[in-house]
Amino acid sequence: MTEGFRIEKDSLGEVQVPANALYGAQTQRAVMNFPVSGMRPYPAFVWAQAMIKRAAAEVNRDLGLFNDVTVGDRAISGRQIADAIIQAADEVLDGQHADQFVVDPFQAGAGTSHNMNLNEVIANRANQILGFAIDDPKKPVSPNDHVNMAQSTNDTIPTAIRLGCLWRIDELLAAIDRLADALEAKAEEFDPIVKSGRTHLQDAVPVRLGQEFGAYALAVRNDRERIAVAADRLRRLGIGGTAVGSGLNAHPEYHLRMVKRLSELTGQELRSAGNLFEAMQSMADPADFSASLRTLSITLTRIANDLRLLASGPTTGLDEIRLPAVQPGSSIMPGKVNPVLAEMLNMACFHVQGCDLTVSLAAQAGQLELNVMMPIIAHNLFEMMHVLIGAINAFTEKCVVGITANPAKATGWLAKNPILVTALNPVIGYLNGAAVAKEALATGKTIKEVVVEKGLMSAEQVDELLDVRAMTEGGIMGFGGGGG
Amino acid sequence: MTEGFRIEKDSLGEVQVPANALYGAQTQRAVMNFPVSGMRPYPAFVWAQAMIKRAAAEVNRDLGLFNDVTVGDRAISGRQIADAIIQAADEVLDGQHADQFVVDPFQAGAGTSHNMNLNEVIANRANQILGFAIDDPKKPVSPNDHVNMAQSTNDTIPTAIRLGCLWRIDELLAAIDRLADALEAKAEEFDPIVKSGRTHLQDAVPVRLGQEFGAYALAVRNDRERIAVAADRLRRLGIGGTAVGSGLNAHPEYHLRMVKRLSELTGQELRSAGNLFEAMQSMADPADFSASLRTLSITLTRIANDLRLLASGPTTGLDEIRLPAVQPGSSIMPGKVNPVLAEMLNMACFHVQGCDLTVSLAAQAGQLELNVMMPIIAHNLFEMMHVLIGAINAFTEKCVVGITANPAKATGWLAKNPILVTALNPVIGYLNGAAVAKEALATGKTIKEVVVEKGLMSAEQVDELLDVRAMTEGGIMGFGGGGG
Amino acid sequence: MTEGFRIEKDSLGEVQVPANALYGAQTQRAVMNFPVSGMRPYPAFVWAQAMIKRAAAEVNRDLGLFNDVTVGDRAISGRQIADAIIQAADEVLDGQHADQFVVDPFQAGAGTSHNMNLNEVIANRANQILGFAIDDPKKPVSPNDHVNMAQSTNDTIPTAIRLGCLWRIDELLAAIDRLADALEAKAEEFDPIVKSGRTHLQDAVPVRLGQEFGAYALAVRNDRERIAVAADRLRRLGIGGTAVGSGLNAHPEYHLRMVKRLSELTGQELRSAGNLFEAMQSMADPADFSASLRTLSITLTRIANDLRLLASGPTTGLDEIRLPAVQPGSSIMPGKVNPVLAEMLNMACFHVQGCDLTVSLAAQAGQLELNVMMPIIAHNLFEMMHVLIGAINAFTEKCVVGITANPAKATGWLAKNPILVTALNPVIGYLNGAAVAKEALATGKTIKEVVVEKGLMSAEQVDELLDVRAMTEGGIMGFGGGGG
Amino acid sequence: MTEGFRIEKDSLGEVQVPANALYGAQTQRAVMNFPVSGMRPYPAFVWAQAMIKRAAAEVNRDLGLFNDVTVGDRAISGRQIADAIIQAADEVLDGQHADQFVVDPFQAGAGTSHNMNLNEVIANRANQILGFAIDDPKKPVSPNDHVNMAQSTNDTIPTAIRLGCLWRIDELLAAIDRLADALEAKAEEFDPIVKSGRTHLQDAVPVRLGQEFGAYALAVRNDRERIAVAADRLRRLGIGGTAVGSGLNAHPEYHLRMVKRLSELTGQELRSAGNLFEAMQSMADPADFSASLRTLSITLTRIANDLRLLASGPTTGLDEIRLPAVQPGSSIMPGKVNPVLAEMLNMACFHVQGCDLTVSLAAQAGQLELNVMMPIIAHNLFEMMHVLIGAINAFTEKCVVGITANPAKATGWLAKNPILVTALNPVIGYLNGAAVAKEALATGKTIKEVVVEKGLMSAEQVDELLDVRAMTEGGIMGFGGGGG
Repeated sequence: MTEGFRIEKDSLGEVQVPANALYGAQTQRAVMNFPVSGMRPYPAFVWAQAMIKRAAAEVNRDLGLFNDVTVGDRAISGRQIADAIIQAADEVLDGQHADQFVVDPFQAGAGTSHNMNLNEVIANRANQILGFAIDDPKKPVSPNDHVNMAQSTNDTIPTAIRLGCLWRIDELLAAIDRLADALEAKAEEFDPIVKSGRTHLQDAVPVRLGQEFGAYALAVRNDRERIAVAADRLRRLGIGGTAVGSGLNAHPEYHLRMVKRLSELTGQELRSAGNLFEAMQSMADPADFSASLRTLSITLTRIANDLRLLASGPTTGLDEIRLPAVQPGSSIMPGKVNPVLAEMLNMACFHVQGCDLTVSLAAQAGQLELNVMMPIIAHNLFEMMHVLIGAINAFTEKCVVGITANPAKATGWLAKNPILVTALNPVIGYLNGAAVAKEALATGKTIKEVVVEKGLMSAEQVDELLDVRAMTEGGIMGFGGGGG
Repeated sequence: MTEGFRIEKDSLGEVQVPANALYGAQTQRAVMNFPVSGMRPYPAFVWAQAMIKRAAAEVNRDLGLFNDVTVGDRAISGRQIADAIIQAADEVLDGQHADQFVVDPFQAGAGTSHNMNLNEVIANRANQILGFAIDDPKKPVSPNDHVNMAQSTNDTIPTAIRLGCLWRIDELLAAIDRLADALEAKAEEFDPIVKSGRTHLQDAVPVRLGQEFGAYALAVRNDRERIAVAADRLRRLGIGGTAVGSGLNAHPEYHLRMVKRLSELTGQELRSAGNLFEAMQSMADPADFSASLRTLSITLTRIANDLRLLASGPTTGLDEIRLPAVQPGSSIMPGKVNPVLAEMLNMACFHVQGCDLTVSLAAQAGQLELNVMMPIIAHNLFEMMHVLIGAINAFTEKCVVGITANPAKATGWLAKNPILVTALNPVIGYLNGAAVAKEALATGKTIKEVVVEKGLMSAEQVDELLDVRAMTEGGIMGFGGGGG
Repeated sequence: MTEGFRIEKDSLGEVQVPANALYGAQTQRAVMNFPVSGMRPYPAFVWAQAMIKRAAAEVNRDLGLFNDVTVGDRAISGRQIADAIIQAADEVLDGQHADQFVVDPFQAGAGTSHNMNLNEVIANRANQILGFAIDDPKKPVSPNDHVNMAQSTNDTIPTAIRLGCLWRIDELLAAIDRLADALEAKAEEFDPIVKSGRTHLQDAVPVRLGQEFGAYALAVRNDRERIAVAADRLRRLGIGGTAVGSGLNAHPEYHLRMVKRLSELTGQELRSAGNLFEAMQSMADPADFSASLRTLSITLTRIANDLRLLASGPTTGLDEIRLPAVQPGSSIMPGKVNPVLAEMLNMACFHVQGCDLTVSLAAQAGQLELNVMMPIIAHNLFEMMHVLIGAINAFTEKCVVGITANPAKATGWLAKNPILVTALNPVIGYLNGAAVAKEALATGKTIKEVVVEKGLMSAEQVDELLDVRAMTEGGIMGFGGGGG
Repeated sequence: MTEGFRIEKDSLGEVQVPANALYGAQTQRAVMNFPVSGMRPYPAFVWAQAMIKRAAAEVNRDLGLFNDVTVGDRAISGRQIADAIIQAADEVLDGQHADQFVVDPFQAGAGTSHNMNLNEVIANRANQILGFAIDDPKKPVSPNDHVNMAQSTNDTIPTAIRLGCLWRIDELLAAIDRLADALEAKAEEFDPIVKSGRTHLQDAVPVRLGQEFGAYALAVRNDRERIAVAADRLRRLGIGGTAVGSGLNAHPEYHLRMVKRLSELTGQELRSAGNLFEAMQSMADPADFSASLRTLSITLTRIANDLRLLASGPTTGLDEIRLPAVQPGSSIMPGKVNPVLAEMLNMACFHVQGCDLTVSLAAQAGQLELNVMMPIIAHNLFEMMHVLIGAINAFTEKCVVGITANPAKATGWLAKNPILVTALNPVIGYLNGAAVAKEALATGKTIKEVVVEKGLMSAEQVDELLDVRAMTEGGIMGFGGGGG
């Protein structure tokens, strides 16, 4: 044995493995075969795969499928093997051995290497727990026959993708909720501020700043709901399909027992996919979940853009709101403060959309019984969630909650806006209105002055209709309406 | 007046319009301003916009908002004007005047030109119905004040996008259902055919051809369900928000009356968006609907690819199924028959994904009160639906229903497949299995021969475990299981 | 024979074809097989395919490959057949028979149906030219053996994609040039206008409006160059590869003669692809050309956004420039004028990016000898070019050339901008500058006042450094520099 | 001072920084503001930014712009400060202090935080080099005034993106070259193997396996050329534009001196962008470079798919080639060997396409003088290059070079293929050919038997035309041709 290495074997032969590594031959082959990105698996992927190993050991144990073995003169019961696997898996779930998960996201199709990394680490830890040294050629627990019992990469990886997303779904939804709450609080705070609406970025009739923020809040809540619905479809598990969906080598009760045990262990409501072939063939549920994150990123892009526009200036832009100053804005221009958290959110959203394209490309590349592109689906889904959680939390806490309005600017803009004439449409008609607006803009006169001069309406009538706050409440001015 | 033209006016001045055109000045300006693609609006867009005009005339009439007018010595009641508008809109809904909708999809932001095209055509037809010539300078019905009463481009176009998608949603869902039904019928028909599974395109354990088709059917049904859910969110209408969402110039009862009347007229369950600012700002619902079509296109791409692969050859490929021969396959190679309908479906799915990207880009480009990119969202959504309906129907009827299995080939492949050894795992273990498979492949011997020679199992035991039909039913062979 | 139909035959049997249709059995089958979108081929696709037919007839004729035939007692020489084909193809090139090209873009893989549509129309026209009725069972010219001689769908369609793009490349490049010219003219016109720069949409140091437009012009020119380079790669032709790239059934001299003859006929510099297998397998050249159009669309999106922002308001936005008013902006808000041509350009650019995704998806779906997704590549490429040409021309002519500056607003913004302090960095340092800017903003004092009060510089020194025109010319103020 | 921290100041006030951190206040603010992904900058980004700092210190020193300072009674010359900065930057370039670059890719717009991270680390190291403790309040070297002299985030980050891509461009091009070389070597090795062509995955006329691989090699080379051309456009530098492109606060000679010095230091041919406004506004060059990587990924996706298809089986697929077995293929199916390196390449290509979308979205989000989305452009570009280099190298070395052909299978498929009849077209015509192929397929007879039976040709004539090797060489069989 080379200094610092031990020899491990798999079905292709012997491999040198770092002497103390918990992983074994197949992981080591993967390390050598895939020196691609240097990245490691997201914790969600390790956690979810370990959870499956843990549940499977328990279920198979309860079904009496672990045989007793004898190593030398030592008898080891099947139950002891199973329990050692469970304990080892629990350690992994607990975040221990994190440095042992060393397979690049760009790896063997379907994620065989990731699955074997888990199988080998857990098998070796189980062997240690049973009192065997890691380099003992007689160590009884096998990565394939014991830890992977009744499993295949082909059913565990799709299951792990689902569980891994669900692992952080509450965290994501809570982050979105906090953002929506913060926007709603601002909607209330900004309700008194009547300002110029802008459509096509051009002068339009009045709105209240609070109405704008209220709409943002609702848009975010709607997207949250979409994500929750898409996540719900991830609760359909195909675990137990084994190699091709038929469940070969799994006990007839295994699938449903696994679904139940995984529900208990994860605290998530899980259910059977119903058809284990479909659950293996199709990545449509993950692709749809990805799309729901894309939709959120579309909304957040829009909101971030709006906030940056409303906060533009301050002296050369709209300056209707002020974002908190969290860091100097320029390495060269002193005193500059930039909307950095909104910009960060923009970038996160563009990144999420890129990840979504990757997921979508990979999801359609399934062939016959399996989609071998699952590892890159997993990597991108976990990255999307991770980036969104971080970005939304930072944006909410360091930006949204600290936004202040600048009522003076908002009011100032509105006062100059000739499109207020719209409220006179029901009385003077669209064509007269257009002529009035044009004259007001050209002469610098107010709408009221022009309308009265032209004899279209009396001054009093105009005043009643040009109540800007009332204009934000809808209805037909001068009609007796008003409530929206 | 130039021969063949008449003069129409709008707020910017006079315009020459073809003498007999039902449209007017603003449509004509759009024709001149946007000679971009030469395309015309999808029928769904015309229909939906006309439906809004019709409903609005009715609702505003019932609210008493149409004033009586006098033209020369003729008195025309508000009700007469409203009824003429309704009749004109009904003609458009009926498909009449289709040649009058001439605005390029690449047009004014928000769709002002499309809205005005409808306003003008309906106004002029209403004038004709009231007995006024199209070039009568005194024609009483105004495109803006009457046909567009209580409306804005900004609330009608988002509403029209929603209605336009819903207009064909049942047609789309029915097409998907028929495809799923056809796949299910094939699943039943092909249930007896045991064949080699393939994962990574490599030899795997057996499946039944029917299981493959059954999984396709379920995948399609799941996508159908997603589309129905996304479409349901399109039922939230913001009609009545008018210019910026505040409902200025609309009667306080207008919004809810419109939702109700549109439900009755379209036969669709519609509901209030709740927040008319959000409904105007946000294109997330259409973007999400687009994403649901993308998810379907991901599934269909996969299925089309699989069918082309399973039907490959016939002499140099898998040839496990035969697709109907609907046309000669090659202009140079006689006797060639290609999987043209599956290929067409592939292309339709790629096209849909491109449309989806456009929708997604446009949806995030909203600014403040409005998303001006709506016309290109409309165009692409309607194109996606149109292409999917046509492609799925053709694929189902001309391809799926006529697929036949080639059991001889399927059985032939399976007989040679050494991965059947997997079923012996629970007895001989993974490592022994690998050695057996390798030797079988190298020597041309069967799995059984090698296993018995190596003394790993008896011939009878092997026979029991290598029942290929049983292997597709799951469970642990030799364990007493069997049921899946 | 059914009234109004005639019977045509192909290798699958008989088909009813409209009595007067120039197309034949295979086109008719395609019409029945692919009732998908109702769209017809872009003229570029018909033109390019006809051009190949015409050149091939000539080349094969000159190589002596058309055999003489006898129909009844009439002898028809090979040359006569070839010449009739050439004449028929010329008619198609001339735009005649445009209504005979009836195959949906969503059609048989590789475009067999499109190819056969051309083969059949030209064959039938050639038969007519030779004096045979279209329903004469003895008509001598065969779509496959004569019109398609030495050709396959598999080499003609990729060639037609290349020729079809080149057909309009000069038109596209000229449109881009005109846009760049117009932007440059504005750059010169606006050179005197010093205004506030904005980075992060926040106050920044001065620029001249002309500098902004000059940069737009150069960005457009750079993209034009990229497109020209990508188009140049489309000049590599694989015509003559026939069915799989080997050139089977084509004369050894055919490939090079075709490249030469197509160059002459199209007036484009064309060259051999060198490897006819690669030319058939790979759609990378079209995908790259598509990407070059995407890059342009990225630039144009940015410019359109900037123009809309600079023209925002007028009363509630930046209003530094004014775009020409080409149509009323709102159906409800009188007097509103929107940046409709910039908005149209935005939409065109989003559409182009969607098309590009479709091209990219289709391009990677090639398998072995062929990419069967070519028809959707063709459709989207031609649509991208068509939309870009129309959109850019309209944008240039109706928007850019008419843009005017609003120097009063531009100067007004700049006067208030405290970031001018940046020019004092080399004298007072970044940290002092930040304090000055902050105080100026809070107190409403000018930078000069604060700096002098704080005793950091004399009033004269400040005046020299705060020459805003000089600040747009670069260099270190107060250093003696100045020129950029 | 809190234990383990020191106090640093920036223009917004005081910040606690880890006592030994080389970075300062603004980096620390970024760490606190952007706890988003936990990722760190790619080495290329740190290297490129440090290179700019180093070159700038030298250029500004040579222009005499570093003033002498006095700290207490110690005089420090401007040259000493510059040299300390240069030495510190060299350490960073050397890979030292890598743990000090701690800013998340999702950060302040434009990359202010990344720029300040470099400014602060280099300033503090320079202070140490000059003998000042890191917490000495009098340390003379300023991150802004000295290290960032004549620079802005706004010109250094676009420059760093360009330099960072060029840093690894030779490595990427070499990886592509090695892949093309390996494919070409296989083309030569496989030249003798005549096999069935497949178009539409259906039987087609023969090709040689070497021809397929030769076409792959050329496709890869063409993409390499595209990448090199796109990379060449990255050589245009806008360094010296400073805050908005005008070059304010930079010496008039600074820009050109920087381009020259950066060329020397990096060993890359660099040149002036010509227009520093465009260089700051526009991310089109990086977007175009990204697109060129996308085009490569399209080609590689196709090739990886083809190899997986050609290697499918072995017993249930095409099995015409064998990929090296580098690891066991399944955790459950013993003896399975999967095309893992081709699968990994597929996944890398999907990932690259996702990154490209992000770059494209970010590139079009520029506004006025600046594109603040640069950090996410940088991150994704560097990730694309990194992943492609790793993936291509692994694929070449562990897969392509070890591919072997399986001539027995290849020949076996071909023997059964009735489409060979195509070679008889010039003699018997397309329609007769189709009838022959159909009969051969139905009866199991060979093409020759059917043709002779039908009296269409003599046996000798058929033999001459059905020479499959000759058929791969093009020309018209039976014509006397043959050479391609």
